[in-house]
Amino acid sequence: MDNHTTAVSRAHATLKRIDADPTRAVWIELRDASAILAEAQAVDERVTTGEPLPLAGLTVAVKNNIDVEGIRTTAAHPNFGAVASADSAAVARLREAGAIIIGSTNMDQFATGLVGTRSPFGALESATHSGRIAGGSSSGSAVATARNLVDIALGTDTAGSGRVPAALNGIVGIKCTRGLIPASGVVPASRTYDCVTVFARDVATAARAAAVLIGPNTADPLSRTWSLDAPLAAPPTPTVAVPRAEDLTSLDAERVEAFEAAARRLEASGARLVTVDISGLLEAAKLLYGGAIAAERAAAYGEFLASHPEGANPIVASIAAGASRHNAVDLVKDTERLDQARAEARRLLKETHALLIPTAPMHPTLAEVEADPVATNTRMGTFTNFMNLLDLCGVAVPAASTKTGGFGVTVVARAFEDQVALDLAAILTGESSPPRLGGGTPLAVFGAHLSGEPLNGQLTDRGATLVGPIATTESYRMVELPGDVPKPGVAPAPQGEGARINGELWMLPPSAWGPLLADVRVPLALGPVELDTGAVVTGFLSTNMDGTDITSVGDWRAHRRSQRTA
Amino acid sequence: MDNHTTAVSRAHATLKRIDADPTRAVWIELRDASAILAEAQAVDERVTTGEPLPLAGLTVAVKNNIDVEGIRTTAAHPNFGAVASADSAAVARLREAGAIIIGSTNMDQFATGLVGTRSPFGALESATHSGRIAGGSSSGSAVATARNLVDIALGTDTAGSGRVPAALNGIVGIKCTRGLIPASGVVPASRTYDCVTVFARDVATAARAAAVLIGPNTADPLSRTWSLDAPLAAPPTPTVAVPRAEDLTSLDAERVEAFEAAARRLEASGARLVTVDISGLLEAAKLLYGGAIAAERAAAYGEFLASHPEGANPIVASIAAGASRHNAVDLVKDTERLDQARAEARRLLKETHALLIPTAPMHPTLAEVEADPVATNTRMGTFTNFMNLLDLCGVAVPAASTKTGGFGVTVVARAFEDQVALDLAAILTGESSPPRLGGGTPLAVFGAHLSGEPLNGQLTDRGATLVGPIATTESYRMVELPGDVPKPGVAPAPQGEGARINGELWMLPPSAWGPLLADVRVPLALGPVELDTGAVVTGFLSTNMDGTDITSVGDWRAHRRSQRTA
Repeated sequence: MDNHTTAVSRAHATLKRIDADPTRAVWIELRDASAILAEAQAVDERVTTGEPLPLAGLTVAVKNNIDVEGIRTTAAHPNFGAVASADSAAVARLREAGAIIIGSTNMDQFATGLVGTRSPFGALESATHSGRIAGGSSSGSAVATARNLVDIALGTDTAGSGRVPAALNGIVGIKCTRGLIPASGVVPASRTYDCVTVFARDVATAARAAAVLIGPNTADPLSRTWSLDAPLAAPPTPTVAVPRAEDLTSLDAERVEAFEAAARRLEASGARLVTVDISGLLEAAKLLYGGAIAAERAAAYGEFLASHPEGANPIVASIAAGASRHNAVDLVKDTERLDQARAEARRLLKETHALLIPTAPMHPTLAEVEADPVATNTRMGTFTNFMNLLDLCGVAVPAASTKTGGFGVTVVARAFEDQVALDLAAILTGESSPPRLGGGTPLAVFGAHLSGEPLNGQLTDRGATLVGPIATTESYRMVELPGDVPKPGVAPAPQGEGARINGELWMLPPSAWGPLLADVRVPLALGPVELDTGAVVTGFLSTNMDGTDITSVGDWRAHRRSQRTA
Repeated sequence: MDNHTTAVSRAHATLKRIDADPTRAVWIELRDASAILAEAQAVDERVTTGEPLPLAGLTVAVKNNIDVEGIRTTAAHPNFGAVASADSAAVARLREAGAIIIGSTNMDQFATGLVGTRSPFGALESATHSGRIAGGSSSGSAVATARNLVDIALGTDTAGSGRVPAALNGIVGIKCTRGLIPASGVVPASRTYDCVTVFARDVATAARAAAVLIGPNTADPLSRTWSLDAPLAAPPTPTVAVPRAEDLTSLDAERVEAFEAAARRLEASGARLVTVDISGLLEAAKLLYGGAIAAERAAAYGEFLASHPEGANPIVASIAAGASRHNAVDLVKDTERLDQARAEARRLLKETHALLIPTAPMHPTLAEVEADPVATNTRMGTFTNFMNLLDLCGVAVPAASTKTGGFGVTVVARAFEDQVALDLAAILTGESSPPRLGGGTPLAVFGAHLSGEPLNGQLTDRGATLVGPIATTESYRMVELPGDVPKPGVAPAPQGEGARINGELWMLPPSAWGPLLADVRVPLALGPVELDTGAVVTGFLSTNMDGTDITSVGDWRAHRRSQRTA
């Protein structure tokens, strides 16, 4: 990220970069510079008043199937849509968080394509590999991000449109669990499976935006909230599934090697790799376009394209026309097949925390796509098409620049386990401490539950995440309790006799508290603890303080170290 | 319930009653008496060995679209199906719990109907009102239960088939949240919306069976488990929605009066009634048969009926034929309408715990149905059709025997709030302490959280349910803590100084623990407590025992009473 400290200076720099950039096909509509600068000015004023703005001054490009007030939402059809009278829910949340919307980006028409060439506004080239495609359908958003024209871009993803372009432009794409980011104010492609996604050049920036975007929205009937057992972190030693060699035959040798290097990187960080047969997932992927589920696309834009041939991309129009001819009985039967495939995917991933897969098997040239547009597009979705169908989430990260184009990998996780995918993706990009997507309630620990201590697994196995070190007010005591296992007891001290006790603050998912309480042993208990910040949080306390007083040390690990060196 | 104490004697009595009963059209296939008696014998032996069997010796009739090993699953078409080689998941769970399967019952063909007359195995008359219909589609199961031929019967319910026949035969029908009772081994009617249901003559017996039937099943891809915040009891003063007078115009005066009496009964028990506009729900109901969603029925049995006209009920065949002609795009659009209606229903019921509605608006004669079979059937589903579409659950109970037939009401609740519906239904039937459907982890309370004490709402507002009184081992102390609000502190006593402390055991939903902990105030905490049963449960403890020792009283409420009388 650059060094501009105000939103106005960031906006100026963004406008300058866009002016200087030759790839005009990135944009379908840029906002007026004056409007952008006025908005940046307003953000700076909000910051001055002390308003906490998690995305203050970050610049954003928005795929042109997502409403931005004042911009025509074309979905890359010049005659479709209208000037939006209000922001979509996603854009409104970004603005509220201090982000500056720069303009709306080119895309495969009606988000139907993974190539970035199906647009009357121009085919887009990869930002990193000239002569090769940008990938789609969120082509403009990905290129705008990769060329550093903006900090963040919104895409949408049904078949892989928020991940394939990330892979082909060397950037990060986060596709959250379906419904977590509301789709209200978004032109549907396949309404049941559409997701709004985020691009950025690093996992941290994309995650900061995703954290702002996630949340229920009553205007979107398919909006979902975090499940109560959604983990708040990947466990320290996760089990990660990787496909068999025979599932990767669509990759060339250089890509296979890059994929294996990514897997080894996770392994080196503590993950246990297990090989799984993903042929069932790759097979289920075919239901998205190969059967009656495609009727969702016909429902979304079939009539419009049939009645507006001028401006229509012929391939998209032909897909919609074909998809309009299915019988409802076939849709019922394909939906049943999909329900079964989803249950099978759950079983396949039951014992694992994540699945590592290639994002796209290849990176075609613009000429290759032109020569065989449909088959090439289909191949691009090999590893992405199944994910929304099977209710999985994922984070796509760059893995290699090969002789034949870009290559990325995606960390896939079960629905609502987005943070697990994000944490593992950050290992792959070499980023430490990626942002949290949200949720959880705090727990203060002082002894055996501290990081690295024997009972810490009672937290990490239940999806807890470490916030950092804390200390109590100066009114607590700590003793070393008698017994075989060394452990401290902490409790409020009699008036005037206490001290600060050091510990750690963790965040726990709502589902973790009951099982954690069932693991608590006499004389420990969970109760309110006052921190030196003034906050009162739930923490480990002791109902029996008969033991060696170690209040003056005030820190269990320091006490243990001194015991060991004594 | 009768007084037979062994399964064998119950089975004998059942067989005798069935032999003596004139309504042969109840059954499609009865099992051999010898097989039934052998099974009863085996149950008695399991009981003798001490195996806990929650349904030991209860007799069961099974709707003939649910697999029972050795019985042909006809769905009331004489040429459909095959002899089941294994029990359906539901039947297997009943048998495992000690229930005795007696036979399979008549029904509206392919569970398509609410009248009980659409069967080549004979039209069924109400058990309580001769000349009037039994209702359907689970007609035989309802009549078998109402005529006391069995203790429990299984039905299925898509449009109301597990509720309408309950209303027309004066019995109880429980329709759980979709997916809680697995549908594997059940002939689908409309696969997304089918539920297996339970009939019994009282809420308690039906609930005991439902508790056994609920649970995940990997063979059913639409199987669901309890949500982590599913309440374990209705709150003591629930808010209950009732329809406006204009939503009840399909009822005659006598039924309106009976409905209002039921509402007043809930009000008298502590419920707060609020009038809501349910016209949106009644409108959504039309999507089940009136649009492309009916294609699910065509997918389930359309081809079979088209190719097997002999044995086909002409109305069911005509519905299937019509339903086979929808375009998939129309199904997509109707599904979207339904998603919106579901979101609207969530909003409508957001501030309420349940909705009380009539089960069926009228009770037609057999002749009336014959005269106008389709329109009459449609009217029967006025108040039931919307429930599975909108992901609601409900318990149907008898409300009145009127001059024009039976009348019942249904307590409707949101998905996973089945226990709330059940508890309110039990108020209507005058049953106290209906069984729990399952779930939760225990909490021991000793002071302000006891029933009737000031902080008890911290439990009941979070869906907790009272199990009953408990006492600790003889090794705890109790003090009255200083402060404005009277409250006790309980903690383990020094060796040899303790006593038994009386309290209550509550069960809490998994989601309740975090918020409860956030409400705990110094010096209280939650930690392990040993009960005199030997069980260790989480309970309220104190980290500070400076106060008036009341260990010798050993009971907070007794201590408070003695203070008041002193």
